[in-house]
Amino acid sequence: MAKRKQIKFGALIHGVGGNVSAWRHPEVPADASVNVEFYKKQAQTAEAGKFDLVFIADGLYINEKSIPHFLNRFEPITILSALAAVTSKIGLVGTLSSSYSEPFTVARQFGSLDQISGGRAGWNVVTSPLEGSAKNYSKTEHPTHDERYKIAEEYLEVTRGLWDSWEDDAFIRNKETGVFFDPAKLHRLDHKGKYFSVQGPLNIARSKQGHPVIFQAGSSESGKNLAAKSADAVFTGHDSIEEAKKFYKDVKDRTFAYGRSADDIAILPGIGPVIGRTEEEAEQKYQEIANLVSIENALDYLGRFFDHHDFSQYPLDEPFPELGDLGSNSFRSGTDRIKKIAKEQNLTLRQVALGSATPRSAFTGTPEKIADLIQQWHEEEAADGFIIHSSLPSGLDDFVNLVVPILQERGLYRYDYESDTLRGNLGLPIPANRYTAAKVNS
Amino acid sequence: MAKRKQIKFGALIHGVGGNVSAWRHPEVPADASVNVEFYKKQAQTAEAGKFDLVFIADGLYINEKSIPHFLNRFEPITILSALAAVTSKIGLVGTLSSSYSEPFTVARQFGSLDQISGGRAGWNVVTSPLEGSAKNYSKTEHPTHDERYKIAEEYLEVTRGLWDSWEDDAFIRNKETGVFFDPAKLHRLDHKGKYFSVQGPLNIARSKQGHPVIFQAGSSESGKNLAAKSADAVFTGHDSIEEAKKFYKDVKDRTFAYGRSADDIAILPGIGPVIGRTEEEAEQKYQEIANLVSIENALDYLGRFFDHHDFSQYPLDEPFPELGDLGSNSFRSGTDRIKKIAKEQNLTLRQVALGSATPRSAFTGTPEKIADLIQQWHEEEAADGFIIHSSLPSGLDDFVNLVVPILQERGLYRYDYESDTLRGNLGLPIPANRYTAAKVNS
Ligand SMILES: Cc1cc2nc3c(=O)[nH]c(=O)nc-3n(C[C@H](O)[C@H](O)[C@H](O)COP(=O)(O)O)c2cc1C
Ligand SMILES: Cc1cc2nc3c(=O)[nH]c(=O)nc-3n(C[C@H](O)[C@H](O)[C@H](O)COP(=O)(O)O)c2cc1C
Repeated sequence: MAKRKQIKFGALIHGVGGNVSAWRHPEVPADASVNVEFYKKQAQTAEAGKFDLVFIADGLYINEKSIPHFLNRFEPITILSALAAVTSKIGLVGTLSSSYSEPFTVARQFGSLDQISGGRAGWNVVTSPLEGSAKNYSKTEHPTHDERYKIAEEYLEVTRGLWDSWEDDAFIRNKETGVFFDPAKLHRLDHKGKYFSVQGPLNIARSKQGHPVIFQAGSSESGKNLAAKSADAVFTGHDSIEEAKKFYKDVKDRTFAYGRSADDIAILPGIGPVIGRTEEEAEQKYQEIANLVSIENALDYLGRFFDHHDFSQYPLDEPFPELGDLGSNSFRSGTDRIKKIAKEQNLTLRQVALGSATPRSAFTGTPEKIADLIQQWHEEEAADGFIIHSSLPSGLDDFVNLVVPILQERGLYRYDYESDTLRGNLGLPIPANRYTAAKVNS
Repeated sequence: MAKRKQIKFGALIHGVGGNVSAWRHPEVPADASVNVEFYKKQAQTAEAGKFDLVFIADGLYINEKSIPHFLNRFEPITILSALAAVTSKIGLVGTLSSSYSEPFTVARQFGSLDQISGGRAGWNVVTSPLEGSAKNYSKTEHPTHDERYKIAEEYLEVTRGLWDSWEDDAFIRNKETGVFFDPAKLHRLDHKGKYFSVQGPLNIARSKQGHPVIFQAGSSESGKNLAAKSADAVFTGHDSIEEAKKFYKDVKDRTFAYGRSADDIAILPGIGPVIGRTEEEAEQKYQEIANLVSIENALDYLGRFFDHHDFSQYPLDEPFPELGDLGSNSFRSGTDRIKKIAKEQNLTLRQVALGSATPRSAFTGTPEKIADLIQQWHEEEAADGFIIHSSLPSGLDDFVNLVVPILQERGLYRYDYESDTLRGNLGLPIPANRYTAAKVNS
């Protein structure tokens, strides 16, 4: 690998962190997930901290057991487009499912966001873990885990093809002659595949970053292969640096098989830092959040990973129940991990549920300690950067004000943006237009 | 009808008017259709003029014969969301096809735009006239005109049902007790129809205007019925006040059959005013625009209405060709009108093509003359308001600066917004939540 790139940061900004009960914290707006000012403030804080991107997660199915801030939240494309108008440098990454949408529409919406924001859009391609999604989309069945990834692979090919419909210099716009574009630089995809038939051309041109940045967030074998083949970045999650290093090497190694280089893909684990001036203050902050979660909340939260399985039917203080295959067609990599840890550490259901709802982050402590850990993960190739998700109301502010300056002083993190596109800041190549490239190579 | 409401205005702001060659005007940015600053400026001008709304048209198929500013333009949901962040009172209406999308996604995106904008969203439900759209959406066939309207009808029922998933007081958000919502106020739609099966609930709540404002833009029998049954507003187009009055009365009368009142729906014809200090200056401005259009441009433009029919095969200066059924599964009401006028007035192909590309607007002349006409159309019930689309670079500015003040002085138009929601300004009722209403009525 060439000289190591600096550390990258993203911020998860949909509502108040992933914590199921964070809305109860006294300093948080309880309606954060539909509060425009809250989103704006978070995006602007992240931009003040020179973050590469903000990130919006998403889902297509809720029921009365869902996490409160999932019940009523902004749809990613709309809120990111609004944020495009009130930010100028930060990347805007949204989650959208390839299992329940149409490539022509999605290519357009992300293409349009990419142009509106001047080359700052990113798309987190997910395959939708929740079975219930099918019922909201007139489908009799949720496709299997394997099939969802096959769909996603073809979907991405179509989308990238549509984005190349117009070569970068196709628009002439000569007012004198009346020539608006060069027809030789307009291309029809004419895709006919197993899942999609899409003719094109797309009715929007590429932005200056070429294609929106493609994120992938699945960690199963199929997820890692899709990432290695087609993604620009991976959003992942790990319990330890060892596990993270293994994942990092694994995904980077897989890129070679697809004719890509390790530098073409950024691995960004999510972390939930809990920052105190002292270790004690940090521990106290963790307890503040953990204490907001009731055992009922925690069981519902755990259930969601297993397709809204009802865990209240089991005794709380006996070993975590045997679940067989449950969860394997849903958040597979997540449910596999939960089952494994419960077995290895001999945990009770109560311990698993509370631990899942408020995991104790390794990134808990003083700003120096957190900066040290970040530096270590980066140096030891466990991560190219991190997606920060804090369940504390001041979490993102504290990170930007207290941790970022330490990393800047150490020369590990930018003082200012290098670029005004997301690809530029992430240090990712601009994908060549396939048709222009074909002419150059012929 | 109760006391007549004041005149309403919308502005068509996608690129530079509908004129096929307006991009060639020396004072227009040739890239207007993908120029964020241009959209912003237009929306802010319309808001300064206290317009009810801005309107974005759309289409799902292009080819090399398409209108230049359709080739590369912002997708409506994204640009409207961006405009939500830089405006505060004006309504934001976008076109989206019910023939090539999923109600769960569309209900969410418009619901989200509605919350982000504080109750200013509107959705122009179109059925997609262009046959080619099917090829971009993995479909073997474009549904027939009739079937498209049947789909649209069921689609709207589903969408309105999803929007009611949460009663307005469903969210309790009590931090002390940990109660986030009242499960008795969360509702599952469980729709099972001919075209859609959608369970719900939707993962976004209603905005303060209840539902986004529903626009309908079809003028065929099916289009008028759909409008009378389910729409809040109609975007239409007419060649004369007589025709407009007939259409107005027709649609208003149809509302009774659906248990609605004439006041529940606003009829807004599009007009393209050409404003000059004198009649001569106005005529000169019209010529400026007309002269930008070549006969080739005009034939392509005409062809688009007839599903990209190639009109260059016919002699230009002979009577308009006999086309049989052509166009009837596309922009039916538009193509019927063109055929009718050509026959009645015995026009040549050249006349029809140039006349379609740059129609001579009745609303051409001095500000007083245009204000008089607007007043007359309003008083004689040809219109509740108008969608202004100007092909002139200064068209919207001129209208706001010169025509609006006259209408204000005459007491026909607001000096300031009455409301901060689109429904509030249009004087339309807030739809009751169906589940709350059912309780009240039982
Ligand atoms: C860090 C992380 C973030 C994710 N974010 C989302 C999300 O926002 N929406 C979603 O539907 N799935 C999300 N997923 C789920 C994955 O996209 C994927 O569907 C799931 O993990 C199952 O695939 P896998 O077995 O390949 O991991 C996320 C997964 C991870 C690990
Ligand atoms: C004033 C007006 C504006 C329209 N705007 C759009 C549009 O933006 N996108 C679109 O696909 N169709 C648009 N249409 C087409 C109609 O939605 C409809 O598909 C077409 O007119 C055929 O239906 P009809 O026969 O009922 O009129 C518009 C039609 C009219 C009259």
